[in-house]
Amino acid sequence: MRHAVEQVRATTPMAQSFTNFVTINLVANAQLAAGGAAAMSFLPDDVIDTAAISGADYINVGTLLPFYKDALPKIARAFHKAGHRWVLDPVAAGIGETRTEILRSFRAAPPTIVRGNASEIIALTDMWGLAEEAEPGNTPVSRPAGVESVDEVDAAIEPARRLARHLASLAPDGKAAVAVSGAVDLVTDGATVYRLPGGSPMMTKITGAGCSLGGVTAVYLAVTDPLVAALAATALYNRAGETAEAASHGPGSFQVAFLDALWNTTPDQVAASEIHLA
Amino acid sequence: MRHAVEQVRATTPMAQSFTNFVTINLVANAQLAAGGAAAMSFLPDDVIDTAAISGADYINVGTLLPFYKDALPKIARAFHKAGHRWVLDPVAAGIGETRTEILRSFRAAPPTIVRGNASEIIALTDMWGLAEEAEPGNTPVSRPAGVESVDEVDAAIEPARRLARHLASLAPDGKAAVAVSGAVDLVTDGATVYRLPGGSPMMTKITGAGCSLGGVTAVYLAVTDPLVAALAATALYNRAGETAEAASHGPGSFQVAFLDALWNTTPDQVAASEIHLA
Amino acid sequence: MRHAVEQVRATTPMAQSFTNFVTINLVANAQLAAGGAAAMSFLPDDVIDTAAISGADYINVGTLLPFYKDALPKIARAFHKAGHRWVLDPVAAGIGETRTEILRSFRAAPPTIVRGNASEIIALTDMWGLAEEAEPGNTPVSRPAGVESVDEVDAAIEPARRLARHLASLAPDGKAAVAVSGAVDLVTDGATVYRLPGGSPMMTKITGAGCSLGGVTAVYLAVTDPLVAALAATALYNRAGETAEAASHGPGSFQVAFLDALWNTTPDQVAASEIHLA
Repeated sequence: MRHAVEQVRATTPMAQSFTNFVTINLVANAQLAAGGAAAMSFLPDDVIDTAAISGADYINVGTLLPFYKDALPKIARAFHKAGHRWVLDPVAAGIGETRTEILRSFRAAPPTIVRGNASEIIALTDMWGLAEEAEPGNTPVSRPAGVESVDEVDAAIEPARRLARHLASLAPDGKAAVAVSGAVDLVTDGATVYRLPGGSPMMTKITGAGCSLGGVTAVYLAVTDPLVAALAATALYNRAGETAEAASHGPGSFQVAFLDALWNTTPDQVAASEIHLA
Repeated sequence: MRHAVEQVRATTPMAQSFTNFVTINLVANAQLAAGGAAAMSFLPDDVIDTAAISGADYINVGTLLPFYKDALPKIARAFHKAGHRWVLDPVAAGIGETRTEILRSFRAAPPTIVRGNASEIIALTDMWGLAEEAEPGNTPVSRPAGVESVDEVDAAIEPARRLARHLASLAPDGKAAVAVSGAVDLVTDGATVYRLPGGSPMMTKITGAGCSLGGVTAVYLAVTDPLVAALAATALYNRAGETAEAASHGPGSFQVAFLDALWNTTPDQVAASEIHLA
Repeated sequence: MRHAVEQVRATTPMAQSFTNFVTINLVANAQLAAGGAAAMSFLPDDVIDTAAISGADYINVGTLLPFYKDALPKIARAFHKAGHRWVLDPVAAGIGETRTEILRSFRAAPPTIVRGNASEIIALTDMWGLAEEAEPGNTPVSRPAGVESVDEVDAAIEPARRLARHLASLAPDGKAAVAVSGAVDLVTDGATVYRLPGGSPMMTKITGAGCSLGGVTAVYLAVTDPLVAALAATALYNRAGETAEAASHGPGSFQVAFLDALWNTTPDQVAASEIHLA
């Protein structure tokens, strides 16, 4: 992970985002603070042109507009055809027909990494028919949960693993990862599941900690393998969250201190992060 | 009001927003800092699905896109049919045909609370034909004012009362409120008019103090009556504004201190707020 | 420049923006911090209505949506017909067919000021056939660069001058300016080219320093000539950047300190700024 953190700071890789309007500013600022560069686009011609100069992309299905229904599947197919790597944040998976239709379309042209909370990972795995018990007419394991998870991360271990294996099976180099955010974060490449403790409960009291982690994961994906990218970004977030919590007095000062901490956290601090097998 | 503040912090009620792109991030962060949860959506299927799990909704007509013209009336009708409570922020009421058409459509499927500045409240009351002197061809009392009020809050007392009575007449439980933001804020349930002094002039030097107050009002509306929700949210904002002004050196540090103060203001401080009859 | 800074603080001129979703909040907050007022709109009826009460407008082509293709040319023509002054930020000029089509349409109904990085200024000058070597089939001087410049400001001196002369030739009063942001900023009215040193490298580590400079330039344009507006806004930004860098520990605290510094920088400090002939 040390190498990934250093590599991003040395080369300022650009990761493009198609992301929601709530946290788009924090996504860009977090990508810059981590040492990368940011570009945000929504029109397919714009996104596809920019992808030619971006190391990886980030797609977040938070605040949908009508034209996304055609635009997002088109963009995902273009990325798949070009072998372009991208990170998906399946925000609010399971809510709304339009979102479900868009997320379903990604099954055949999938991202390289999925990052979400436990409920979103479980919902996406169900939606793609990858759940163990998936059968037509089956009751889904998880109910839709809005943007907040109603499930614990441990409930997402098996779904995350299945999801990662599906992503890897369609990746040009057979490599993919899934990251589940929670009190303790999980990351898996489909084989091994890692547990990353730490962070701060204040990360749930600002909007966009999860979204911006997705954006920063895309920055790392521009310079390293999906598993290392997901691990390094998650570890950086946890270290920065701890530093920011100690330096703040509420969610306003937490967000400021968090961006400063993304900037100031050293490669050594990230590399020294505790990682356990799940 | 003490109970409402405590109840929000104890139960983390979710309020969904359909709001403008300028201040959408601050709305969500203010809702979280007040102790609630946030979700932002724009597509009718998404909004209506999410409303099933949200305690109340917030609609702000600030930065309109073409599809809002059909989407917003549809959403308002769905809320009305379901008896779902919502707060309207009629930003820039009176400017633009599209905005006028959307705001007119809300007359028959109205919100539970309207929060705006004096000019917006006067413009909406005129638009709905509720003004004393309202007659076809009449010159409106107030000229359009962009997003800034050109009228003093006192000019909005009678319009606010008439507006609140209209909202109440169509509410399932007969309860509604109107809040007018200004140097001294007004809140009315259609019968009594309350005056809430305090706050900070710096609240007009950051974008979104008004919008985010609307969002926080929706969070309170999820746990209490419209009158109490409007009073409690307005009082919380004034106390937080005073704390933030004392702790800041300009609009950048004011916004940070303001979010911290929303988080740290106690139920006792809100409950001790001065409230006068107007 | 002193007079422009004082005039803005004394009269709170409103500048309306049609701008991207990433930095829209910072644009509005910077306009307020500089002493102006902000309004953000996207629908032509809304923008054109609001322009009647705005001193100048700001258009930024960052995050395009499908309807902008018709809306933006329509708005530019309405401004041109009304002699309404506006600032263009040609973000990512050269990327995407939709953006190119929109930017091309502005050639005949141009802004009063263009502000961009060197690559954007060069790309726009090429696109409008104003470059010295412009001939059908010619290789453009600059390759598309995403949102980051790949060219040094000096490479944009001649393109900026040509661009400014084109803008001036179509301005009602024959006055226009072009501002090129970089390590040392350039401003030209088409005749003289000025160099403004200073600022902070941290301005490239937050998103929106350039966009919000465009918005603040529009606020100044509401009270003074294009050349003075571009010089004063650029000088204000450099002084505020220096103050913020000294007061911050990373990009989070830099943005906070930067907004405070926009608020606290005095007319004298702006007026004392170094300006050289290029």
